[in-house]
Amino acid sequence: MTTPAARPLDQRVRDTLDRLERDVDAWFATADPAGSPYLMPLSYLWDGRTLLISTAGTNPTARFLEATGTVRIAIGHTRDVVLIHADVREKIPAAEIPDEVGDAFAAKAGFEPRAQGGGYSYFRLVPRHVQAWREANELAGRDLMADGKWLTGDDAPSEAEPRCTSGT
Amino acid sequence: MTTPAARPLDQRVRDTLDRLERDVDAWFATADPAGSPYLMPLSYLWDGRTLLISTAGTNPTARFLEATGTVRIAIGHTRDVVLIHADVREKIPAAEIPDEVGDAFAAKAGFEPRAQGGGYSYFRLVPRHVQAWREANELAGRDLMADGKWLTGDDAPSEAEPRCTSGT
Repeated sequence: MTTPAARPLDQRVRDTLDRLERDVDAWFATADPAGSPYLMPLSYLWDGRTLLISTAGTNPTARFLEATGTVRIAIGHTRDVVLIHADVREKIPAAEIPDEVGDAFAAKAGFEPRAQGGGYSYFRLVPRHVQAWREANELAGRDLMADGKWLTGDDAPSEAEPRCTSGT
Repeated sequence: MTTPAARPLDQRVRDTLDRLERDVDAWFATADPAGSPYLMPLSYLWDGRTLLISTAGTNPTARFLEATGTVRIAIGHTRDVVLIHADVREKIPAAEIPDEVGDAFAAKAGFEPRAQGGGYSYFRLVPRHVQAWREANELAGRDLMADGKWLTGDDAPSEAEPRCTSGT
């Protein structure tokens, strides 16, 4: 098999925004404040700047988001990676979500947190750092967002690491 | 679309063992001891009881595995989930791995940690808890292993939760 040529930065950003818009689920990695990791697939809604998710307040994901304020998100599969480091901007009880936002979430996720009896909240997550790569030849230039800002062709490319999917 | 019937326990165990054997990569979620999550795709080798991975000792995954001794692993995609909670059994410097194990890892992963200049180690991970589900109708019975033991048809099924992929 021939590995396709590495995508330039602007194409990776476009591909990543497309995935954020179209994909329904992603992996959400959180941790309790003592360092025990947690991992769960969740549906999300992307509004162009933030990801909105919803889960029961008693679930580990909700508790750990509240406790630590930070999450790692993986969209796609292990050979077409979009990896996001995000902060929790706000927690919104299900009853307090604006109607149009709640409707948009339910339509995308196929799931209605407002009908779950009051125990659900939404969390708005703000990407701080975004990376995307497919094979080893895309490790150089995998940084797409730093400090909350999408990079452009004028930004210095990230350095390659010695190894692809087993590298970190 | 019609959701396929929920798979019985023995079929889920077979499917899960098949994925463990055939899949090359998985998502590995770790956390630093202060509760900051980390998520990375890595190649692994399954020997029937444990997963073997390898990464540079300076990488977050290696440091957090050493510090906390615990990891969450996701194989497959978000609508065909295999979710594993595993403990670190041992860390093996690349130079000390038995030849046949190192060879088997390199053949499966397509990556040779022993050729990386000495900074790589292997980690042997022992599953403690395993779950598998596809759609909401498979949330009941999603527990396949508890306390390190594969469940059988004689074990009580796990209870359903109110919601599929957005449930937790």
